[in-house]
Amino acid sequence: MEINDAHICGRFHQIENDERGSSYSDPTIYGNLNPSKETIEAIIRTLEEGSCNGYAPCVGYEVARQAVATYLSHDGVEFNSKDIILCSGCSSSLDLCITAIADGTKNHNILMPKPGFPIYRTLAESIGVGVKTYNLLPEKKWQVDLLHLESQIDDNTAVIILNNPSNPCGSVYDENHLRAILSIARRYQIPVIADEVYEQIVFPDKKFVSTAALESGVPILICGGLAKRFLVPGWRIGWIAVHDPINAFDDIRSALSSLSQKIIGSNTLIQGAIPDILLKSPQSFHDDMINTLCENAKVAYEAIDKVPGLVPYMPDGSMYMMVKIDLDKFPHFETGLQFIMRLMEEESVFCLPGDCFELPGFMRIVITLPGDIMKEACDRIVNFCNKYYT
Amino acid sequence: MEINDAHICGRFHQIENDERGSSYSDPTIYGNLNPSKETIEAIIRTLEEGSCNGYAPCVGYEVARQAVATYLSHDGVEFNSKDIILCSGCSSSLDLCITAIADGTKNHNILMPKPGFPIYRTLAESIGVGVKTYNLLPEKKWQVDLLHLESQIDDNTAVIILNNPSNPCGSVYDENHLRAILSIARRYQIPVIADEVYEQIVFPDKKFVSTAALESGVPILICGGLAKRFLVPGWRIGWIAVHDPINAFDDIRSALSSLSQKIIGSNTLIQGAIPDILLKSPQSFHDDMINTLCENAKVAYEAIDKVPGLVPYMPDGSMYMMVKIDLDKFPHFETGLQFIMRLMEEESVFCLPGDCFELPGFMRIVITLPGDIMKEACDRIVNFCNKYYT
Ligand SMILES: Cc1ncc(COP(=O)(O)O)c(C=O)c1O
Ligand SMILES: Cc1ncc(COP(=O)(O)O)c(C=O)c1O
Repeated sequence: MEINDAHICGRFHQIENDERGSSYSDPTIYGNLNPSKETIEAIIRTLEEGSCNGYAPCVGYEVARQAVATYLSHDGVEFNSKDIILCSGCSSSLDLCITAIADGTKNHNILMPKPGFPIYRTLAESIGVGVKTYNLLPEKKWQVDLLHLESQIDDNTAVIILNNPSNPCGSVYDENHLRAILSIARRYQIPVIADEVYEQIVFPDKKFVSTAALESGVPILICGGLAKRFLVPGWRIGWIAVHDPINAFDDIRSALSSLSQKIIGSNTLIQGAIPDILLKSPQSFHDDMINTLCENAKVAYEAIDKVPGLVPYMPDGSMYMMVKIDLDKFPHFETGLQFIMRLMEEESVFCLPGDCFELPGFMRIVITLPGDIMKEACDRIVNFCNKYYT
Repeated sequence: MEINDAHICGRFHQIENDERGSSYSDPTIYGNLNPSKETIEAIIRTLEEGSCNGYAPCVGYEVARQAVATYLSHDGVEFNSKDIILCSGCSSSLDLCITAIADGTKNHNILMPKPGFPIYRTLAESIGVGVKTYNLLPEKKWQVDLLHLESQIDDNTAVIILNNPSNPCGSVYDENHLRAILSIARRYQIPVIADEVYEQIVFPDKKFVSTAALESGVPILICGGLAKRFLVPGWRIGWIAVHDPINAFDDIRSALSSLSQKIIGSNTLIQGAIPDILLKSPQSFHDDMINTLCENAKVAYEAIDKVPGLVPYMPDGSMYMMVKIDLDKFPHFETGLQFIMRLMEEESVFCLPGDCFELPGFMRIVITLPGDIMKEACDRIVNFCNKYYT
């Protein structure tokens, strides 16, 4: 059996994207997680007022930027509207940030986590910027391998990308670990892009700490958006919050605002509703989602932990759990990809291969499903593993 | 008085973009031109159904693409959903098209009209692609100077950009003229990007002909969107329709679809409503807008035609009218820009300088205003000119 890994990973992305129904990173797919009533009402109000159909400033309406600034100002952080740029999804926020900071013609590179969200590489390479990775340590709750991070920095490193809470790891870094990472950034004077699109999506006993809340001494571009916490990924609203304690980012601010002019901003209807979406969605709405995630994580962890040959890593937040596939125990398969492909074919359970995050031998489980489907999926995984385990 | 033209033109763009209220190319600004009732209802229905909050395929929902294909299939043209890619506004359609066709590392250039919409240059130059311009002839209803177009083509010309109906000219090309342009493209085997974002916005006795309706023998990427004809520029929905009669564009099709993955598509709420927006907005809605434009064009033409020193060019469509400033008659001003700045300062009438479209000595008047404001603006222009004419 000949399998070209790159090709299969491509095929997985294809499947992920092919039809809305099969994009498994989409929390809205099963209909159990929906935007808040307040979110829907805010759009209807905006529509009926009829004042948000024209062009907005490319960086976003002032009121929407102010609302994001207010929303992100907590734990001692203070943003104001001038620090905020609205984008078409967090992907577009990341695109602008990478393009503003890193320059392909200067041989720049970015550092991204491994495993990590693949779009960082796609965006960087599309503008000729190099990509280096730093390891995360599964056995240490996917903390950054600080020594490895440091060893990857070179004279051309333009920015370090952090992703917390993490896709695909489900890890949530505490203050100390974030400080340790940021102190390396400061030592080498390298700015940070903090992908915090899963901000606040942490399990009950955990706390989300934004990099902006720490006195880091390095400029940080925080990327976030409505996709995950507000459960409207299709609405394509992201933001950049410029946190620049040392005033080193004036040129980056203007580069970001020029870049935002290329595509003339994000959807104004949603922008008009942002103040209500962010500031009126009730705590119970957020709690409900967290409960679903947390319950699913427990169910999946307990089920998979019992399966010989699989090692689950309990997440502390975000929407995913990583599972290691001990291939020695499944001699039927040469690679994790083959294992995952067969799991899909035989049990219709679709897990994203670690390969898509540059970490072969793992698979990523989504924990946004309705409880009964989560259980059923776990049963099938158990079934599959019992069949092939030796 | 020292005036740096580039700086002022920058300042004008700034003013255009600064606050929603002052973006004078925005037809929704004065509240007289609003989206159809059917458009608003379609969004509310989509919201209430709750099925369009998640990620769509990057190129757009199949039903939305099919609706665009149906909508664009007229005058013998047949598109199907596979020919359509949805983007975040027509600007993003143009961005994808230029990036897919032209390659900065190969020293490619694009040809764009002069005067022409400045975003073509911005998009091309941002990826290192050169820009050359071909002249439009004001005295021939802004037709393309075919000899000049031909003379501008060189071995590195990757694509010709056509804009019909035109911003800023208000011109609408007839079949013969379009054929003449396309036959040059065919002769030199250069593909065309047809910016038809003002499609169907033509005055009663004129006909809009899409380049796709002509047997051109060259591949054409048609760019359009909801912004203008459906009066929702802020909603950021554009499309690309691939018209490829000679099957030369297979690689371009896949490049476009890869590029669409970078930013994960356009707003799904609007996408869900596209079939109804496009196919249910009644003819009376379109007629009302055309009547407003046509009335305003007549009012402005008649008023300005009487002003010594100004030469208006009657538009046949789109949302603008060009006016030539005969600077010999206004010795007070060294440049058109100075004239326009002063007009704004003294009369609060804001016309975009031709400089913004690479044609100094002209100004662009917007004809989307309510009738009384249009008249008032013309009175003020007359007033201003009478004061400074010598
Ligand atoms: C880590 C991470 N960053 C960014 C994004 C992109 O978010 P958006 O849908 O707002 O573009 C995702 C989406 O899954 C993600 O997991
Ligand atoms: C000729 C032309 N092309 C493209 C656009 C951009 O349209 P959109 O707002 O959909 O990005 C405009 C907007 O004014 C335009 O005039």
